[in-house]
Amino acid sequence: MSVDGEVSKDIHRPDHPNSVGWVKPQKVVLFKDEPFKFEAGGTLGPIEIEYEVYGERRGNNVILVCHALTGDAHLAGWDTDPQGPIREYRKTKPGWWDQMVGPGKAIDTNRFMVICSNVLGSCYGTSGPSSINPATGKPWGLKFPVVTVGDWARQQYELLNFLGIHKIRAAVGGSMGGQMALELGLAYPDLVDDVIVLSAGHRVTSQGLAFSVVGRHAILKDPDFNNGDYYDGTSPLSGLAVARMMAQITYLSEESMGFKFGRRLQGKDSPDFTLTGIDFELESYLNHQAESFVKRYDPNSYLYLTRAMDYYDAADKWGGGDMATMAERLKARIMVVSFSSDWLFPPELCRELVSGMCLARRPITYVNVPSRYGHDAFLVETETVKRLITCYLKKS
Amino acid sequence: MSVDGEVSKDIHRPDHPNSVGWVKPQKVVLFKDEPFKFEAGGTLGPIEIEYEVYGERRGNNVILVCHALTGDAHLAGWDTDPQGPIREYRKTKPGWWDQMVGPGKAIDTNRFMVICSNVLGSCYGTSGPSSINPATGKPWGLKFPVVTVGDWARQQYELLNFLGIHKIRAAVGGSMGGQMALELGLAYPDLVDDVIVLSAGHRVTSQGLAFSVVGRHAILKDPDFNNGDYYDGTSPLSGLAVARMMAQITYLSEESMGFKFGRRLQGKDSPDFTLTGIDFELESYLNHQAESFVKRYDPNSYLYLTRAMDYYDAADKWGGGDMATMAERLKARIMVVSFSSDWLFPPELCRELVSGMCLARRPITYVNVPSRYGHDAFLVETETVKRLITCYLKKS
Repeated sequence: MSVDGEVSKDIHRPDHPNSVGWVKPQKVVLFKDEPFKFEAGGTLGPIEIEYEVYGERRGNNVILVCHALTGDAHLAGWDTDPQGPIREYRKTKPGWWDQMVGPGKAIDTNRFMVICSNVLGSCYGTSGPSSINPATGKPWGLKFPVVTVGDWARQQYELLNFLGIHKIRAAVGGSMGGQMALELGLAYPDLVDDVIVLSAGHRVTSQGLAFSVVGRHAILKDPDFNNGDYYDGTSPLSGLAVARMMAQITYLSEESMGFKFGRRLQGKDSPDFTLTGIDFELESYLNHQAESFVKRYDPNSYLYLTRAMDYYDAADKWGGGDMATMAERLKARIMVVSFSSDWLFPPELCRELVSGMCLARRPITYVNVPSRYGHDAFLVETETVKRLITCYLKKS
Repeated sequence: MSVDGEVSKDIHRPDHPNSVGWVKPQKVVLFKDEPFKFEAGGTLGPIEIEYEVYGERRGNNVILVCHALTGDAHLAGWDTDPQGPIREYRKTKPGWWDQMVGPGKAIDTNRFMVICSNVLGSCYGTSGPSSINPATGKPWGLKFPVVTVGDWARQQYELLNFLGIHKIRAAVGGSMGGQMALELGLAYPDLVDDVIVLSAGHRVTSQGLAFSVVGRHAILKDPDFNNGDYYDGTSPLSGLAVARMMAQITYLSEESMGFKFGRRLQGKDSPDFTLTGIDFELESYLNHQAESFVKRYDPNSYLYLTRAMDYYDAADKWGGGDMATMAERLKARIMVVSFSSDWLFPPELCRELVSGMCLARRPITYVNVPSRYGHDAFLVETETVKRLITCYLKKS
């Protein structure tokens, strides 16, 4: 999930033959007549959706990519014209999955039509708490309906319908995106041929839920939060920074934190013994992560999206708590990829999903990739993920 | 470290034959003539130290217990007269290690003289940032010198000197207390016969350091923090609450969190789908933990003590980075106890210490206790810890 900090390499240059090049995010307004009904209650219409498309449609060749918590529709290539300060970061880096999506890449845009849309509740172009409520002319804030992973699946489904697509080759996602891809397969069993779930599961762990609770607590208790109505004034960025710093720890493993930073001091030979300043590289790293993140993310969106992740429980929703009953519903083939050192969506959790599939005698490909990179591995273990996705899409 | 939430059971009643009964914390003022020199710089004198003593001295029978981050000198029995709102909690529960310390208990006060003192920088009676700076008549705040684990060892040493004790049978501590017990053995090799380290190591892990950084960040960025000078007004309790909630997660294991709370809803059959309210038991638990903690702890003390834990690196300090060189310095026998599911001071870290001892051919007893309770296991796995300590103290 740490899309920050990736630097542009040759292969990511817009003029590289494997890059989708310069791209322009697209917008569509749906639910103009009949409003969108949210799973948890509430309605909204019209709804604006930002999405990107690369590659041409040729038969059943659509791959829908579902983004993670801090991701957006801008999957690959370079944004021609990033709008607003919150999307300023797009000027310095390509789309968040540029290593995977492009002509000749693992998700080959010469072969597939690739679609990614920003989710409801986010702050990157699709309607969310920072969008304007037409009734008041001001941002929705917490009056925006509570969104769920089920709402996101419906959003993808309706966008595909709008694009005239009623069958897709695969839904792919990591972390929150993996939850979404799974939900799409469960909610619309006839829509998807293959579901690819990376670093994700049918629910969050208790520990994952707990971290999420504390992150939101930091935002909610920030005196600038003002019950979500802060768009005219100062945003609760201190709270968001704390949430991000803590989340960042859960994206790395103890091992990767150890070899990246360990106990190394920040540009000094001996510590200053400071209570308020910085002594360790790790402090500097976490501060930097937080600082760059708060510039590009809306605290309310952080509340909405993490809450949706917490509430999601596919076995509860589709199997009355039983994994096998849930799995029976899924018509798509599925590949689940976990990473050995991921403790946010640990292999043990992914194996519950795999067991459910096996019990339901549904086709499942499961790989637990040995990795030192923790949850971030799905974005960092590029070569392995490339090979897995390439082979899986060739085979099936 | 979660001393909150323990309820009084029969064995903890002050009139139980295995209880030390009603106890009165004692105070001593040291460094009246020559001030205490802090390892990281700065001096202070006089220094007030709060401590408790149970049992009679008979030869070399003193056991020094070192408390953890949120602990205090009040080890066992019931405080006759808890002073001030911050010690109000002592009215409802016995000392934090009452299950272990008392007549006939594992650390048997019929056999041993048991001493515990509150550490420098804390808020439970020993000089710390909330103590009054005589020069200004106001609390020290961040003008209190930065404390280290080495300072705590010195503090224990000087208190023992004051009590006329120049040799002790054992130094015992869990978590931060384990760091302190180890340091005492290293700094004063002729003082201690046995060092018992529970759920602790020669340093914190990178992950532990990172959580500590984020917890402090939450306090430092609380608008009520006022650079530590908040004693006249509102304390930065929101920041402290976030720090505590996050720390609480690191004290439990994913498994114990799972079986204690899992995804159970708080007194309801279906979620309210709320962004600002409580739906999960886990949320209620974390909130409750934070609420009770902020009533009894000083945010500045949290900064000082966690920073001391972070800075401590016994191998660096005593072995120039080499564990075996460090271990050669330790004359005491040592027992290290880790718990399989402790991820704050994980078994792998404890084994580094054990390896160092083996390489230095120093006597070491190492036990990795299979436990589901995470870091808290050293307080929760009472029977196992009792047996280990009882046997170890009998044997050696």
